[in-house]
Amino acid sequence: MKTNRVVVIGGSAAGPKAASRARRLDENAEITIIQKSPDLSMASCGYPYYIGGFFDDRSQLLCSPAGVVRDTNFFWKAKRIVTRVNTEVTSINRADKKVSFRNLLTGEASELEYDKLIIATGATPRKPQLPGIDLDGVTTLQSMQDADFLRKVRDEGKIKKAVVIGGGLIGIETCEALHLAGVDITLVEQLPQLLSFLDPQMARLVERYIKSKANLILNNGVSEFIGENGKLTAVKLRDGIVIPCELAVVAIGVVPNTKLAKDAGLETGARGGIIVNPYMQTVDSNIYAVGDCVEIPNLITGSNVHAPYGDLANLQGRVAGENVILGNVATFPGTIQTGICKVFEYGVGSTGLNEQNALNNGIDDVEVVVNASLDKPGFMKGALLITKLVVRKSNGSIIGAQVLGLGDVSKQLAIWAMAIKGKLTVEDMVNADLPYAPPYSLAIDHSIATAHIMQNKLRHLFKGISAEHLKEKIDENEKPFFLDVRNPAEYEQMRIGIGETLIPLGQLRDRLSELPVDKNTEIVTWCKISLRGYEAALILQANGYTNVRVLEGGIMAWPYKREK
Amino acid sequence: MKTNRVVVIGGSAAGPKAASRARRLDENAEITIIQKSPDLSMASCGYPYYIGGFFDDRSQLLCSPAGVVRDTNFFWKAKRIVTRVNTEVTSINRADKKVSFRNLLTGEASELEYDKLIIATGATPRKPQLPGIDLDGVTTLQSMQDADFLRKVRDEGKIKKAVVIGGGLIGIETCEALHLAGVDITLVEQLPQLLSFLDPQMARLVERYIKSKANLILNNGVSEFIGENGKLTAVKLRDGIVIPCELAVVAIGVVPNTKLAKDAGLETGARGGIIVNPYMQTVDSNIYAVGDCVEIPNLITGSNVHAPYGDLANLQGRVAGENVILGNVATFPGTIQTGICKVFEYGVGSTGLNEQNALNNGIDDVEVVVNASLDKPGFMKGALLITKLVVRKSNGSIIGAQVLGLGDVSKQLAIWAMAIKGKLTVEDMVNADLPYAPPYSLAIDHSIATAHIMQNKLRHLFKGISAEHLKEKIDENEKPFFLDVRNPAEYEQMRIGIGETLIPLGQLRDRLSELPVDKNTEIVTWCKISLRGYEAALILQANGYTNVRVLEGGIMAWPYKREK
Repeated sequence: MKTNRVVVIGGSAAGPKAASRARRLDENAEITIIQKSPDLSMASCGYPYYIGGFFDDRSQLLCSPAGVVRDTNFFWKAKRIVTRVNTEVTSINRADKKVSFRNLLTGEASELEYDKLIIATGATPRKPQLPGIDLDGVTTLQSMQDADFLRKVRDEGKIKKAVVIGGGLIGIETCEALHLAGVDITLVEQLPQLLSFLDPQMARLVERYIKSKANLILNNGVSEFIGENGKLTAVKLRDGIVIPCELAVVAIGVVPNTKLAKDAGLETGARGGIIVNPYMQTVDSNIYAVGDCVEIPNLITGSNVHAPYGDLANLQGRVAGENVILGNVATFPGTIQTGICKVFEYGVGSTGLNEQNALNNGIDDVEVVVNASLDKPGFMKGALLITKLVVRKSNGSIIGAQVLGLGDVSKQLAIWAMAIKGKLTVEDMVNADLPYAPPYSLAIDHSIATAHIMQNKLRHLFKGISAEHLKEKIDENEKPFFLDVRNPAEYEQMRIGIGETLIPLGQLRDRLSELPVDKNTEIVTWCKISLRGYEAALILQANGYTNVRVLEGGIMAWPYKREK
Repeated sequence: MKTNRVVVIGGSAAGPKAASRARRLDENAEITIIQKSPDLSMASCGYPYYIGGFFDDRSQLLCSPAGVVRDTNFFWKAKRIVTRVNTEVTSINRADKKVSFRNLLTGEASELEYDKLIIATGATPRKPQLPGIDLDGVTTLQSMQDADFLRKVRDEGKIKKAVVIGGGLIGIETCEALHLAGVDITLVEQLPQLLSFLDPQMARLVERYIKSKANLILNNGVSEFIGENGKLTAVKLRDGIVIPCELAVVAIGVVPNTKLAKDAGLETGARGGIIVNPYMQTVDSNIYAVGDCVEIPNLITGSNVHAPYGDLANLQGRVAGENVILGNVATFPGTIQTGICKVFEYGVGSTGLNEQNALNNGIDDVEVVVNASLDKPGFMKGALLITKLVVRKSNGSIIGAQVLGLGDVSKQLAIWAMAIKGKLTVEDMVNADLPYAPPYSLAIDHSIATAHIMQNKLRHLFKGISAEHLKEKIDENEKPFFLDVRNPAEYEQMRIGIGETLIPLGQLRDRLSELPVDKNTEIVTWCKISLRGYEAALILQANGYTNVRVLEGGIMAWPYKREK
């Protein structure tokens, strides 16, 4: 039997996974990984936690679970995979099925023939072409070398002020890492909100929280990096503000590395990634592509997206590694873009589509609801979760969920990701059978309670109003009657303070006379999380009030300034 | 419109939920809860944590999330629900649609007419009719009064030794609670294993862990409670062993409270519960039943089960509460028997069928696999998870998962519960899109890795052997060649010690000569969790060995005595 020659370009995540899977399926294949960087199989998602001091042993970023550094020797000994590090592939010759490469240290050039080629070239951080971008102190967080540089910031303790540019996942993780390193941070985002995978109201909640840890500037961007003697001293923003700082981290997204592929005539798509079929195969049947350099279908909209997530890179690598050995037997169907981010003590994440995305993708029968509750009972030290659920009105199918808070966000996102995967509807979720015990969840899990509220809303048992919408009304000088139905003690401790009347739920039926006489008056009810607000609305409706709305998620989901 | 009169028998979990849902759907209904106990809406699943000192304020067991005790006044004020506590329903007169009841404090008897009746009478702990069962110091853990009694054990600190009888959920939770109260515990279970929702191998892992906290006696039961002057002094087991103790907690399961229903001619089933349709309605169209007193379908087998879980009680209550007001519009389809239990620092749980249950239910194409890994990267202080996955060979459909360990068991169970709910297969799960970031999971989540291993097994890429099966072989004096492929340092730290040969994976290809010459020899490979064990098996197979098996879950899932 002819020996199968597999060449993998890229040795970070998807590449080694593909190579390892190929090896497991064919002990006799000749497998080579060509890696531009000096390191292999870096746990790059772990960089922020190394910088932030969650752990101190750098080699943990490079180790197998058994504690062995995954270097050239490891790949050869354990997997019989040849790895060429510090080596850049310079071209792909599809006609002759070979790649040309060059050792970046020695300059030596060479070629290698392949039967199957896997492109796993990753992505590169966007760097704006601005004055001063090359000053010392301006960096990205992409490579092991970047991580080393920023870890030194922590270890040396000299740098006091930094600007992080970009309020996406990496920007916010960097923000936390540097804050933990004792650096005073200003986070600058050019959009009107952080974390664009969130709808604005949910982003507001994160922004309010982050402001307790860092300076936050939205709707603004960098116009210039200012320096002295080649060293950064300040960042100038588009509106003229100058922020003195010794460090600037640029985290405004990544661009798929597709030059090699394009030069070889392989197709790229509207999102900038290499085009692949579900086998992770390019238009050239001998060439596969995986990881951050490709674009893949969003499974809900059917449109391609660039989804540079470490977990998907590994899954794609596994598929390509199998297909180069066995022929096209495995598929990677696409993504629902599930992501999660640690934001200091908060978890923040999303799966499926948010409301904005759904509307932008032409889904016009969207219903949403916001729910706030603890993740487990108060007596078990439950912590807050806030979920925004997105479904289709027509059939109740679940198409997205955003979750954030101090509670167990990761489990909630996993539940919704699986609900979307299983094409479940709200009706399916209202009787979900999830693991319940007080150390782990409420008797009615937060996700199920969210489905209950959505079911009530879809059946028109109540009308909700989002904090965002209510804020708009206030800003436009509309004057609904505001009704807070909590206890006086709760009211003293915390309140929105927009002219609300306090009538505890238990007194409401006896104090209806204190409400507007005109039963068509718009009334907005709330409590802490809005279960009591919902009950109050039902009481009012039963008493003839025709225009009652519940503030969704209650005070806990109110992202704006409160009186108290 | 005629006022709807709803009577609910039972005020613990399902009853109040049904009554509250009914109120929300009909502000004008007359709703009454009749409750035998003095308390209402007790968080009974929280009793063990109150006893164990996770919190000290007893009223938290009775409070709404806003901190208000859910007493008669609360139910009337907030929900306009009449509650009669310390009151026992003595009979149901279906012909006249009324219930007779008696105040247990005053003896006063009365009657109440209903349009719709909801039976939520719960279940009662089994108590064996043994000598001494009524001694002071012999108790169950079912009521608020039981919780008070056991909390006093903690607070007074006088009792030093206790026996817990029954190794199910309640028994083990009680065991932990009393251990935390400083009591020396002996746990006695009459079956050969703890936690019968687990397959034996998984139970062994829990047993090994519990032995570090308590004395454990399996395959044995109580024959007598021995006392002096009416007070317990010891428990005598069936084999004659006498265990001195001042406290015995009987937790050998619960029996549905169906006397009222049976006396009224309502049907009960083989599992002892009241028979209901998916609307939670009994054979009498005006009578519904919910919670621990009913039996419901297992959604995988279609057979009825008794599933006394707090979460299901609430979901059923919501359905019945809706249907008594709106007619039969809501359904509760059944259960997949998802459960979780905190066992000291371990989480332990199951969803769907375990292997034994599947076989007992006539599912004869079962495939299983055991996977062990961390829940998140080692550098983020990942903790161990062990999962046993159960699927059907014919179509790969997921029918059950058991998970245990120090890691995030709750999320894993939720993922598998949702997979079963969505009728997903192994092929669906291998590319699941779950929330990944190092603080929350591995790049390939433990659940997805488990699916990968199962996929490899279903495709015959490797043959596995369970620890249980391997132990049997050893006990029967079979002598496979045992191959541990970890590093020498790992071997020095921990090893099974059943005559294994150590050849690190990275040296295996060069040391094949040290293996048996006969390539048909049975070889069992392993490492810590068996990823390297799997790679070793593939290398051996590629070199002509025909009978190689991987020890599933590796050393971490080995539940028996180790040399080291």
